[in-house]
Amino acid sequence: MWLCVRQHESMSECPFCAASIADITFMESPRFRAIVNVAPILPGHSLVIPRRHVESLLALSDDEVAEMVNLSRTAVARLMQVDDSDGFDWTIQESAAAGQSVPHLHLHLIPRRSGDLPDPGDWYARLIEFRDRPRLTPEEVVAVARRLRES
Amino acid sequence: MWLCVRQHESMSECPFCAASIADITFMESPRFRAIVNVAPILPGHSLVIPRRHVESLLALSDDEVAEMVNLSRTAVARLMQVDDSDGFDWTIQESAAAGQSVPHLHLHLIPRRSGDLPDPGDWYARLIEFRDRPRLTPEEVVAVARRLRES
Repeated sequence: MWLCVRQHESMSECPFCAASIADITFMESPRFRAIVNVAPILPGHSLVIPRRHVESLLALSDDEVAEMVNLSRTAVARLMQVDDSDGFDWTIQESAAAGQSVPHLHLHLIPRRSGDLPDPGDWYARLIEFRDRPRLTPEEVVAVARRLRES
Repeated sequence: MWLCVRQHESMSECPFCAASIADITFMESPRFRAIVNVAPILPGHSLVIPRRHVESLLALSDDEVAEMVNLSRTAVARLMQVDDSDGFDWTIQESAAAGQSVPHLHLHLIPRRSGDLPDPGDWYARLIEFRDRPRLTPEEVVAVARRLRES
């Protein structure tokens, strides 16, 4: 008998449910966290995730969505201030068909500066190369989170 | 003296402030509209925009953001139902540095089905080819909006 499950299907395997996620959190609300991306495509690339294991944006209540989006706006404003950015990309991929890599809802926040990539639109090609992107060391990620918390 | 202004800087030039936008609206709330994209990268590709001319997500009040996101969730749920989709991409580019083409805030909603593009991540390469993408005729866009309103 074949038993087919999606990668990270359970909370115990989900990287966004790991206890260590607290160390890379730089801003939080009762039900959400803003965390540093371990493989940033640009400086400041972060994620906003629900604390509970939810895969879909459509599974949140209206009240939760409002909390998530308002935390995201506060977080991106801080990211832009810290890195003196000009704008940001803000994106969710919902389902594997849409490019979702980890099945725990996550909103990408990517602060942008004029000229940071050869073309402003090059961010997404980098985003989907998740498995091949250079990763920060655990110490570097924790240091970035601490710097953002204290800024 | 040079006077440099961004394209569509004023409401009078902004395509999302044009009176005809009502014809391609398929869902609305007091301060926002869900409209059909005139150059869809995939069937159902739509936008959620504020009725007033706002360039930045950070210029909205918390209350407005909640209204925008909840309209967007309702709209994407309808799009997914109509086209029997498996998921969606949901993205904002804020500022020209981040790839924003029209300086009136717009959230892209792109329903996705497994196998709709050679790679799930190919949507963005299509999105940024805005000026080169095939466009629906005005009659086709209005017909899509009508179908979505009545679904």
